[in-house]
Amino acid sequence: MAPPKLSSSEIETRLQDLEDWRLEGDAIKRKLEFDDFLEAIEFINRIATLADSADHHPEIFNVYNRVELLLTTHDSGGLTHKDFDLAQEIDRVI
Amino acid sequence: MAPPKLSSSEIETRLQDLEDWRLEGDAIKRKLEFDDFLEAIEFINRIATLADSADHHPEIFNVYNRVELLLTTHDSGGLTHKDFDLAQEIDRVI
Repeated sequence: MAPPKLSSSEIETRLQDLEDWRLEGDAIKRKLEFDDFLEAIEFINRIATLADSADHHPEIFNVYNRVELLLTTHDSGGLTHKDFDLAQEIDRVI
Repeated sequence: MAPPKLSSSEIETRLQDLEDWRLEGDAIKRKLEFDDFLEAIEFINRIATLADSADHHPEIFNVYNRVELLLTTHDSGGLTHKDFDLAQEIDRVI
């Protein structure tokens, strides 16, 4: 079953626990820059392990040393605890 | 030095040697779908090795089992042989 959407105040609270994520519509986004391309790819692999364990998948955009991540819960039509839980885990492996 | 931009007819010729890439503005794009998320990530790692060797980097977009690639040569302001060479190598590792 899809988890319930968070309220605006729940979203505000959980955003405060994250580093550099910003709210954009029904999603949260984070932009990162690494020293080079291979470091960016290594980071994507670390995210992939977390995403696979959580069975929740961010949108991942990469070009050269830059990575952009977007999290939302499509099945719930917005942000849920799954997005913030995964964002927090991602913050830990940067 | 940045390689020269290809002419429209050169682009048409080289596109014919590729599988499922389409021209979009000053770039070529390919959309792929894999069995699952981890297969998509493995594919991204194969591309990364090729991109690193070629010192030419596609834009890579991933969500779950889908991967979209975009190639262009920013330094040359359009498509060059580097884009088509890399696209051909990518086609070989799918």
